[in-house]
Parts: sequence; structure tokens; C-alpha cells
Amino acid sequence: MMIQALIFDVFGTCVDWRNSVARAVARQLPGVDATAFAEAWRAEYDPAMARIRDGGRGYVPLDDLHLENLHRTAQNFGVEAPDSLNTAWERLDPWPDVTDGLNAMRQTRIIAPCSNGSIALMTRLARYAQLPWDCILGAEIARDYKPKPAVYLASCAALRLPAHAVMMVAAHNGDLHAARAAGLKTAFVPRPAEHGPGQTTDLAPDAEWDIVADDFNDLAARLS
Amino acid sequence: MMIQALIFDVFGTCVDWRNSVARAVARQLPGVDATAFAEAWRAEYDPAMARIRDGGRGYVPLDDLHLENLHRTAQNFGVEAPDSLNTAWERLDPWPDVTDGLNAMRQTRIIAPCSNGSIALMTRLARYAQLPWDCILGAEIARDYKPKPAVYLASCAALRLPAHAVMMVAAHNGDLHAARAAGLKTAFVPRPAEHGPGQTTDLAPDAEWDIVADDFNDLAARLS
Repeated sequence: MMIQALIFDVFGTCVDWRNSVARAVARQLPGVDATAFAEAWRAEYDPAMARIRDGGRGYVPLDDLHLENLHRTAQNFGVEAPDSLNTAWERLDPWPDVTDGLNAMRQTRIIAPCSNGSIALMTRLARYAQLPWDCILGAEIARDYKPKPAVYLASCAALRLPAHAVMMVAAHNGDLHAARAAGLKTAFVPRPAEHGPGQTTDLAPDAEWDIVADDFNDLAARLS
Repeated sequence: MMIQALIFDVFGTCVDWRNSVARAVARQLPGVDATAFAEAWRAEYDPAMARIRDGGRGYVPLDDLHLENLHRTAQNFGVEAPDSLNTAWERLDPWPDVTDGLNAMRQTRIIAPCSNGSIALMTRLARYAQLPWDCILGAEIARDYKPKPAVYLASCAALRLPAHAVMMVAAHNGDLHAARAAGLKTAFVPRPAEHGPGQTTDLAPDAEWDIVADDFNDLAARLS
């Protein structure tokens, strides 16, 4: 297989945002249902990006959207949140297989995030979660948000590689449909605990992705 | 000192382009004076960027400028060069103190290149030379070339840091003058062998830079 680079969704695929954000909320907003707050905060994510994808607003880094969404969520919960809680998104725990799996994949291929997170956010998160990226790609390079094709294509272009030499890795079928439509190879890794015990979405692949792996270690083995 | 990130010039400051490119030239163009060819190829670098800095040409990644300059240089030497020789710039040896020094500095601060090299070039060079960057900043982020202030400022902005919290590290006084004018902190590390035994430029600091260090290990010690 002529895959020269692997690019990764991060929130959900590499890191457990739900429990990590809830932990930070519990510390800074005692008395609030921290998991419900984390889920509500995350639920504002896609609508906030949608306006930018649709052209109704210029590119704004995700850090700023997260901060706007934090205050909207806090208002809905009847509390006031400090701006500093926004750095919770820089301290998300990796799933247990991620660091070892990435280090293995990095032996033979370029690895990089293709996330909607900014360069600053992805850089700080990588330091916290020990994600050994070769570079940071994704939304900020394209100044647009996934699943717009520009984000996948700008990431390939930044590596000076054709799309067919790059594989998108994600726990979300929607991300892979968009990457495939842009010409990339695709790998699905399920993260059935991303949304907690009641998760109903993305439990299994919904198309014939180029690779379906159990976790990042399994993906590394299938690629080698 | 409130320095939160260190950004580095790469060609000359981190890696020995002259001997490394000469080695690749000797391998692919036998019979040519390889060191003279490497120096002549590098001499085309600044004029090629100048047209872009001046607005006479849109942003073109350095990989493409290097390739144009390769063929111009080959013509001047009366030879034909294969395009593949251009990847010599992805395989430049680090000065002996660089990898250890960067690993030490990375313990406490974000480290990134602020080079005129593209994301693709800096990514591949980092893998070859074991430069443990947290992310890739520099010309491609700004779509312009140093010493234009936009390149330093875009690199700080990508980290969401004010310029005074970022230190530019270079073996070239001119790079540091431009970084200081943009508001960054500055560190000079001499590389008296960059241009070979007859080097006459940048042998010493020509201004009171915030730090003057012997090498990257010394710089790491002064910062800690």
C-alpha cells in the first residue's frame, strides 16, 4: 500500500474529550453536573462551525468558538464559568492505545492531526497527551472546518502529497465519507465509549473503509 | 523570563546545509565540485525569495524555488541535474548539539521551526535530523518569507502568544534584527562553520541580543 502519511481526527478518535472535560468542569464548577456540562459544551461545537463552513462568518479558531460556547453553556446551566476553563481542551487524555500506536505508525509514515482544532490547541494537546505528531495540519491550514473538502485537501497539499497517498483515520464515519470524497484513503477505529455508556452512533463502520482496525496498535500492525 | 515558546531558524542554525547538500551533489553529479555547487545553489536562495517578498510573485513554497534554482545552478555548471536531487534539502545533518539541546528546551517550552522552508520540507527534515518540534511554523503559515515581519508575527499568532512571549533563535544577526523589530525576544547561537573555513559573516553577535549562547545545550541551560 502506497500510503505515505496518516492524518488523524483527534477529538474522540485520539482523546477522550468527554471524561477529560468533565474532570476540568468538576474542578472549576463544583455543584454542576460535570458530565452533562461537558456534553452540552461539546454539543455547541458543530453549530458554531456550521456558520463558518457556510460562509456566514470568516474563519475563527476553535479556541475562540470553544470560549463563546463555554459562556453560552454556563448561562444555560445558570452558572458563571472562568475563561481559564477553556484550556480544558488542551488537556484531554488519550485513549490507552494511542501513544504507542502513533509511535509505531510514525516509524514508517508521516503522522499528523487533521482536526478542527487550531495549531495552538493541537500543539498544547499533543504535549499533554503525548501525541508524537510530525507536524500539525487540519482546519487552521485550510482556514475552514471539516467536513469541508478543503480541510483534507489542504492537509495533503501541505505535505506535497496526492490525496491517494494519504490515509484519514477517524472514529467517525462522517469524517471518512468526506475524506474519501476528497480522494483520501480511509481507516476506521471505533471508539464506543466516546459518548459514554449510552453511545448509539459510530459503533461500527457504515461503509467499506480501506482499513477497519480495533485500535491504534491494530492499525499500526495492519499498515506495516 | 516569561518565554513560553522558542522558534528557530533552521538552515545554518540547526543543520549543516553546506556539507549535507555537497554530499548529495557528489553522489548524483560525479565530476562536479560538489561544495562549490552546493554554495552556488544556496546563493540563488535569497534572490528567489526576494521577488516574493517584494510582491512581484505570489507565494511559492521553497521546495519549488529550490528546484528552479537547482536547474539554474546545473546550467551554470554545464551539467544536467535530476529533479530528485532537490530532496537533498530534506536530509541535512544537524549540528551535534541540536537534538539534545532541543529535547532539553522542549521540557519547559514549545519549540518550533520559524524557517523559510515549507511545512512539507520542515516535516521531512525533522524526521531525518531528529528535530523534536511541537509543530511547524514559519513561511508557509504566513505565505511570505523572512525577514518580513509577517512571518514572525504569524508564527506567534499560530501559537496564540504575544510576540514578547516568544524567542527567536538564530545564527544570523539579520534574522534576529527582524524578529526583534517585530517584538520577539532574541537568542544568538554562532555557527562559524556554516559557510566553511573561510566564513566571515555572523561569527559574533552584532547587537545586545537577549541571550548569546555557545550552542543549543548552553542555550537550554541559560533558559532553565
